[in-house]
Order: sequence, then structure tokens, then C-alpha cells
Amino acid sequence: MRSVGVVVEYNPFHNGHLYHIQSAKQLSQSDITIAVMSGNFLQRGEPALVSKWARTKMALHAGVDIVIELPYAFAVQQAEAFAFGSVYILDALKCNGICFGSESGDVNHFVSTYTFLEQHRDSYEHYIRTFIKEGVSYPTALAKAFDKLQPDKDMIDLSKPNNILGYHYYAAAKRLHSLLDFYTVKRKNAEYHDQDFSNATIASATSIRKALQQNGNLSDVEPYLPKSTTSELESYHANYGQFHDWEVYWPLLQYQLFSHNETSLREIYEVEEGIENRLLRAAKSATSFEAFMQIIKTKRYTWTRLQRMCVHILTNTPKSSIHSLGETPSYARLLGMSEAGRVYLNQIKKEIEIPLVSKVSAFDNEMIQLDVKATNVYATGLNEPYKSKLLKQEFAQPPVYLKERGLNKIM
Amino acid sequence: MRSVGVVVEYNPFHNGHLYHIQSAKQLSQSDITIAVMSGNFLQRGEPALVSKWARTKMALHAGVDIVIELPYAFAVQQAEAFAFGSVYILDALKCNGICFGSESGDVNHFVSTYTFLEQHRDSYEHYIRTFIKEGVSYPTALAKAFDKLQPDKDMIDLSKPNNILGYHYYAAAKRLHSLLDFYTVKRKNAEYHDQDFSNATIASATSIRKALQQNGNLSDVEPYLPKSTTSELESYHANYGQFHDWEVYWPLLQYQLFSHNETSLREIYEVEEGIENRLLRAAKSATSFEAFMQIIKTKRYTWTRLQRMCVHILTNTPKSSIHSLGETPSYARLLGMSEAGRVYLNQIKKEIEIPLVSKVSAFDNEMIQLDVKATNVYATGLNEPYKSKLLKQEFAQPPVYLKERGLNKIM
Repeated sequence: MRSVGVVVEYNPFHNGHLYHIQSAKQLSQSDITIAVMSGNFLQRGEPALVSKWARTKMALHAGVDIVIELPYAFAVQQAEAFAFGSVYILDALKCNGICFGSESGDVNHFVSTYTFLEQHRDSYEHYIRTFIKEGVSYPTALAKAFDKLQPDKDMIDLSKPNNILGYHYYAAAKRLHSLLDFYTVKRKNAEYHDQDFSNATIASATSIRKALQQNGNLSDVEPYLPKSTTSELESYHANYGQFHDWEVYWPLLQYQLFSHNETSLREIYEVEEGIENRLLRAAKSATSFEAFMQIIKTKRYTWTRLQRMCVHILTNTPKSSIHSLGETPSYARLLGMSEAGRVYLNQIKKEIEIPLVSKVSAFDNEMIQLDVKATNVYATGLNEPYKSKLLKQEFAQPPVYLKERGLNKIM
Repeated sequence: MRSVGVVVEYNPFHNGHLYHIQSAKQLSQSDITIAVMSGNFLQRGEPALVSKWARTKMALHAGVDIVIELPYAFAVQQAEAFAFGSVYILDALKCNGICFGSESGDVNHFVSTYTFLEQHRDSYEHYIRTFIKEGVSYPTALAKAFDKLQPDKDMIDLSKPNNILGYHYYAAAKRLHSLLDFYTVKRKNAEYHDQDFSNATIASATSIRKALQQNGNLSDVEPYLPKSTTSELESYHANYGQFHDWEVYWPLLQYQLFSHNETSLREIYEVEEGIENRLLRAAKSATSFEAFMQIIKTKRYTWTRLQRMCVHILTNTPKSSIHSLGETPSYARLLGMSEAGRVYLNQIKKEIEIPLVSKVSAFDNEMIQLDVKATNVYATGLNEPYKSKLLKQEFAQPPVYLKERGLNKIM
């Protein structure tokens, strides 16, 4: 069986994602699709709209065959670490290829960009340091440094978020000496950050979340979602009383900040020297997460970097607990599979070099403890009885198994 | 001016407290009364029903002249440290005497008990260790060890909570070579832990809180409270939307536990080796503070000791941040004063050896940071806009000044 890997967040799964996985299968001529998906907290430093279990069901119904959780230690990270962890897992699961959405749309441009940057690595890094010193954010420094090197026309625009991720997927594969084939699909219609709907049936996840959070009304976003997503969102809202966003966690984040002082805050992962005092002061005056972010933002840090910092504070994740981990994911946690996915896993299970974890209670290491903690904290945003329900799910829920697709039946 | 000190929590101020301060003044022939009062978290490991500011007003209206906050580092502590911090502050404020309520009622019995225990210190400590090894709680071990020494009849019963405190006040004064005169008032009618009302107008604070929390109705408890307490409670409820109890903080405590692992939890003050795993497991299944306590309680730890442990977890106070403090209070934070109190403070201000702090923003040290943190965490239990109001008060509120008593007027 040929398999293709995708790296996803599905927050929530929409028609653009559907187009992506269908193209991935077609381009790579694969039988099955394997998704590595962030858990309850996402790469951009946000709580997911709905839990990883609900997002797994959306993925399976829409055509994904295997969903693996990207460990927290790799998910809530800048592009390089996020991409490295994801590619490592896809490679470990014997994927034949990887397919990602990009603004570029031409996989050769990623190859030439990578080769070019490897050739100019010293000057590239020199330029990056120079721009950082000028006080711009890290991604801006990367893009400006790249520009300085006067890249050819057949190279990607490294200021675009999906190009950046794609570049890092390729770089990770090189680093791992992986034999993954690379495919890319040009992103259709929706720009990553678009907040308004176009007439098309594809809209960005950001705009979908925004509409949901403003109106709480699924009918406005239905045209942009597969039916299975709509019904999963409806059922989640009915079962857990609400969707998740940063404002739900603001009282907890504020409380966590109050329970720190400058010294202990500096021990948290991604909290850089100098910002801790700013965070503590802002916590005292802000009355919402949005207000808090407006107070702490600076030119030096991107919004997403600050949000990731906030997630690590919310989960109370110290630098030491990330630094003590190995450099690669030490397990592949199975969140769900289709019948084809089950057959595939049976075929490869003897070849996989990292444990495939179906039950978190049967596996324990430092890295997965961070995932469990993140899930516990994610649940704590809810009121009872929803909180207890979500807490129990983490330990009681076996991987979601979808026997037949199209019947909306999950066994 | 002659002054008498009292060590209090006023949770809330009731008729028994009124009797206590009136007796204190009379017995000691004093002009003014100085209260050292716990802040927002109390010696028995509980959040105060209402904030320290509201309790300060109750105290001033009822006849106390100066209210000083006992620092968190001494307030949320077992009897010995609590008593030592309190007596230290009263001594520093040049009090002439101290008057406490006790089950015994005879100050000479405290003196003879102290002398007796000093004489038998070695065997006393030997017996304590023996009983601790048998698995009983520390207070039980103390009482049993004392019994083993076959004390005379003119000694106090060291199994009674107020006798224990009184004993430690006296021991602290001895340790400090203080010249404080000692007075004690026999507690009237209400046993410390009584939860039911008697016909008298004195009821324990515990029974008053219980009635308030069950019915939220002040009329049931009015007979047991000075009018000024009733009106202060009414106004607090109107201004902050609720009273405080452990259940208000349960979601935060649970969240704080989730954000720890065994190693980091062991660093919290009073978390003893071996209990951390028990706490973490209980946090996952409990849906209320009461349920949590029922799961974690053991014969080895008293309920109040476990509650104090929970307060230190809630405020995320590590062992290191208590151990790095000096052994004595390093300031006296003034919460409120009457006109007579103001005159007294003016008279003694040149003799006081520790800073008298009126504005927390103008004074900063490690010890007072714990008080500020405790107040921030205390406020975090409330919803907006009450939370912001209470947070601001800590920095904006000057000491309460009561110019005239009986007019219910606070300027």
C-alpha cells in the first residue's frame, strides 16, 4: 500500500483541507493518507476550537486514514521544530511521500531554495543576526536575509507562512536522510490570514473560527465545511457546552501569571529574558486575552510567538522539561484510523521503530506527559460537568475507528 | 498610652470577638487595641470569607484601633510559626500586653505549662517522635506526648486549639525576650469547631460561615454579629458579587495541580514527600474541593494541614521562597486605624524597628511579594468586573481610617 503524509491542524477541517487530501492522494498515487495533527494546542499558540478527538473524527470522515498526534513538544513550536517533528513521524510510519499546501505550488522551487540556502548558509546566518539586532521579528529577519542573498526567480517567497513550513519539511527530510517523495498543492483562494469569506466554497480556518466565535452560528460557515465537520461541530457544542478560544483560558493564564514571579516566569519555555516583567504587569491590568496581547506586543516578537509563549505559561512548561527531551518524537500516538488505515498499520507495525501508542495509560514517558498535561489544562477551561467529561476522555477514549466512510458511523 | 495586642482572623468579626477585645482592654487597662490579623488566606488554610479590607473595617468599627496584616509567610502556618510572627509584630509595635482567648482561661496555667515543658523538653520531644512514627498527626502527637509527661492539674489541656495558640504566644514572647504582659479570656459558649448555633448571642465563626454559605442569608446570623459586621458583609456581597470559600478556588487549584508534575509539586511549601502523587491523582477525579479533600485525607495529616498545603499550591509558593526569608516579619503592614490608633502610631513611630508599611507600592521585599501574590490569587477567584476591582484595591487602598466610631462612617 502506498501512503502519503500530511501535516495538519484541522481547526476545523474545511473544504480547503478536503481539496488538499484529495490532491495529495492523486498526486502521489497513494492508497492511504496519514495525517500528523497537533493536539489540543496549536502551532500558532492557540487552543484548538474543538478537542483533538473531534478533529480526528472530522479528518477520518473526510478521507484521512490515520491520524497521529504531533506531541506538544513539537506542535507548539516555531516552524522548524514543528516541521521536523511531523516529518520524523511520517518517516517513522513508512510514508512514501508528503504533500503540503503552499503559496508557491511548485515542489522544485523548494528544492532549489533549499540547495541555494545550504550554499549560502554562512552569509544567510550573518544577515539573519544583523536583522535580528535591528529589532525585527525572527520570521521577518529570515525573509529579509533571504532577500539579501538575491535568490533566483525559481525560488519560493520565504515571507509566506505555508512556503516557510514547506521549506522546513524539506529541510527536515534532508536532515533525517529520509526518502519521502515531496508534493505540493497550490493553496486555493483563501489566504492563510483571510478573515472574510469569498464567494468560493473555500475559506481559511481563521475566517471560519472568527465567524463561529462571533455568531456561534454554524449556518454561516456551512458552505465552507464538509457535512461531517458541521455535524461534528454541532455535536461537540452540544456535548461540551462551548467552543474553545483564548478568552476561555484567559482567567487561567492570568492566575498562572499571578502565581509566578520574575524568576520563576523566566524558567518557562520561550519566555525570553526581559519580557517577564512586561507579562506580569500586563496581567494586572488586562481584563481579556485580547487586551493582554495588545499590551505585551512589540515589534520584536510576532503575535504567534507571543501566543506560543502564553500557551507554555498556561501549561506551566519549563525550559528544562523541553530541553531534557530527546531531539525526536519518541512515540506515535494513534488518535484514529479508517479500515484501510488499520490494515496499513498492521502491515507496517513490525517495521516501526518508535512505539505506536493506542492507550495513553499504557505508555509513559516525559514527552507524552506534556501531551497529557496539555489535555488536562485544555479541559480545565470548561465548566463542570463538561470538564470532567473531557478529562476522562483522554484516558478512556481508544483510537477512533471508522469502519465505513459516508455512513457517518463511528464504531 | 497603654496598648494591648490581639491576634485575630475575624472571619468574620462576631460577638465573641467583641467580648474578647472589650475584655482585653479591661483586663489590661489599656487605651488602645492593636490587632495582628491574617490577610486573605487564614491559618487553617482557607480563603477568608471577605477580603482583609472588609475585615479591617469590621474590626475598627467594633473597637480595634490598629489593624496590622500578619504576612502570608506567618499566617498560613502551623500554630508555632503563626504565633511567633504575630507576637513579634505586637512586640515591635511596643504593645504593653497581649490578650488571647483560651479554653483554659487562666494565664498562670500557661506559664506553668511552659516551664514544665522546658524542664522536660528531651522526654517531650522523644515522645512526640514516637507518636509521629505510629502514624498520628502532629497535633495529636503533641497532645499525647504532653499527657505522657503526667502534667499537673494547674496546666492547660494541650489538645484544645486555643490553648495551643496561647501556649505558643507565650513561648514566642520568651524566645523574643519580650516584656509583654499576658492576659487570657475564657472562651464563652462557642467551641471553636461548633457548627450549630446555641441560644446565646455568641457563635463560632465556623458556624456563622457555614450558615452564610448554605443560605447566603444574613438574617440567620445577624444575632451573632455586631451591626457593623452585618452591614460590611452586605456591602461586600453587593460590591464583589459573592463571599469566598474553597469551592470558589477549586477550579484554580485543580488547574494548578494539572500544571505540575510530581517533581515540581514536591517543591511547593508543606508538600511532603509521598503525598504529591496522591494529590495529582485526586485532582483528576474530584469535581469539588470537598470531594478532593475527602480523597486526600489520611490519619497522618490534619484537615487544616492539608488545607494549608492546598493554599500553598494555590499560591504556587515553593519551599525555597519561604526558606529564603528571614526568621521574623520584616515589616508591619498597616491595614487600618482609628483616630486613637493614629495618635498611638505617631507617638511610637520613631521607636519601631521594622518599617510600618502604608502603601504596598512604596515598599518591596520578598516577604511582602508573597502577600501581594496571595491577594492577586484571592481576587482571581472572582469573575469580572469584581476581579479587577479587588486587584486594584490592593495597590490603591490606603489604610482604612476611622475617624469616629459608632457613626458607621469611614473616611
